[in-house]
Amino acid sequence: MHSSPSCSLSLPLSPLCSAGRGSESLSAEEKQEVRNTNTASDPSVMASVLSFYLSYLLLLSLSVCVLVCVCVWSSCWRGGFAWDGSALQFNWHPVLMVSGLLLLYGNGAVLYRVPLTWGQNKLPWKLLHAGLMLLALIFSIVGLCAVFEFHNKNKTPNLYSLHSWIGIAATALFALQWVFGAGVFLLPCSPPSLRGFLKPLHVWMGGGILGLSVAACISGINEKLFFVLKAVPSYSELPSEAVLGNSLGVLIVAFGLVVMRILSNQNWQRPDSRPEDLVYTPLLQEENE
Amino acid sequence: MHSSPSCSLSLPLSPLCSAGRGSESLSAEEKQEVRNTNTASDPSVMASVLSFYLSYLLLLSLSVCVLVCVCVWSSCWRGGFAWDGSALQFNWHPVLMVSGLLLLYGNGAVLYRVPLTWGQNKLPWKLLHAGLMLLALIFSIVGLCAVFEFHNKNKTPNLYSLHSWIGIAATALFALQWVFGAGVFLLPCSPPSLRGFLKPLHVWMGGGILGLSVAACISGINEKLFFVLKAVPSYSELPSEAVLGNSLGVLIVAFGLVVMRILSNQNWQRPDSRPEDLVYTPLLQEENE
Repeated sequence: MHSSPSCSLSLPLSPLCSAGRGSESLSAEEKQEVRNTNTASDPSVMASVLSFYLSYLLLLSLSVCVLVCVCVWSSCWRGGFAWDGSALQFNWHPVLMVSGLLLLYGNGAVLYRVPLTWGQNKLPWKLLHAGLMLLALIFSIVGLCAVFEFHNKNKTPNLYSLHSWIGIAATALFALQWVFGAGVFLLPCSPPSLRGFLKPLHVWMGGGILGLSVAACISGINEKLFFVLKAVPSYSELPSEAVLGNSLGVLIVAFGLVVMRILSNQNWQRPDSRPEDLVYTPLLQEENE
Repeated sequence: MHSSPSCSLSLPLSPLCSAGRGSESLSAEEKQEVRNTNTASDPSVMASVLSFYLSYLLLLSLSVCVLVCVCVWSSCWRGGFAWDGSALQFNWHPVLMVSGLLLLYGNGAVLYRVPLTWGQNKLPWKLLHAGLMLLALIFSIVGLCAVFEFHNKNKTPNLYSLHSWIGIAATALFALQWVFGAGVFLLPCSPPSLRGFLKPLHVWMGGGILGLSVAACISGINEKLFFVLKAVPSYSELPSEAVLGNSLGVLIVAFGLVVMRILSNQNWQRPDSRPEDLVYTPLLQEENE
């Protein structure tokens, strides 16, 4: 039988080598120990933390670039903003959907991965996660209102394109995810067994909503560029607005990929918050590489 | 200090409780032991296997539905197929891209998760994985040739829309992924340390390419429906072709979500093939729930 020397010899490096228990079921003492262990100045920890912050810096830079691109597009190329049922009201739609359903959502999703937060009580970060997601949801709903009112005023049907189907599905799933997430992971009366059972689904659905959001953004930008660049110069001549819109799409895809990379790297997972079916051993892994 | 009783007491249930070693670095004896351990008829294993096969059945059903939808759309609504530079040549584009870059790709990605393959040598499944991916790549390249030739014959510029940028990026990354994947994970001269280092990147990039593929499909279907449904009935009146195209998009998104769910569930990962930074303990997890 294959023995498990790595587990038995590696306690200082493997604080959570007790499989099958979600973070919700750890005792306060165990959680404190995890925090203490992970503040160690081991070079492998430092390398992991450094590589996280480089990725996080990339994420923040992409967030700023995406926000600037979508705002510049709406304000400089599409005439700016208003709330009067005109095309200027429509301009709120891309800005609010990209800000809410993509940027705030993606940044809220990776919050627990920031090592700076690991040595602290999880509750304030849970509240910040829920708060950011609520803000993202409000932005998305206002962004949907902007396009619905614009359509209604101009007698254009709502929800007929595939872009709209994907976008409304993303927002509806996001709203459900927020309500169930708050009910299960924030309310004190929620049993730990329910939290442990639903956490993998919450994480998977979170990634799925981000994927839907990216697909909705790409199809929406593509559709809008075909709508507004019909005459000379047409979209196929790639005028500066087309290059800006396409670049915005590429930046959005890059943002989505970086979020997924941060979420999928087990080394960057909050030590007392790993999935209940995994054992957290990032330092062991680095030691053996 | 928090002890690790689960690890030390659970050897029969936790065959891979030695963190930090990729499947490539396990000895033949250890791998055989993993296979033997995982053929046990434990009820929790059976439940996990059953839930996998239900998800896999859903994946296969979605694959068939997507394939039928895209073929019916191209053949019945868009006039069928030819290779003469006409619109009938274009019709190969959605069929081949969806078949290759989405369906074959997604099914090839989850191949290692099928429990039926776990008790066997990994090499034939690696070859099948590489073979399916090569077929997917060939389908995608022929699908791109179909649209390039159609554009060239009709004096339409290539690669100007965001859909085309995302699609070409997905295919180019897929080609790179295949070449590097074959070089690193198939060639016997490739060192295990290199395999262990690149495996998480291979897995992450694999998921990223699937996301790009879904985004390209959604934006492409959306764009095509706006192109072909301009007159009466227009896209906004949701004629049957629009409902078919939109439903195809929804099915594609569902397919992508199921692939990501299968890939992200650690319980369904081949026991001797988990990421080098995780410890495989599904039975322990089930026992403790």
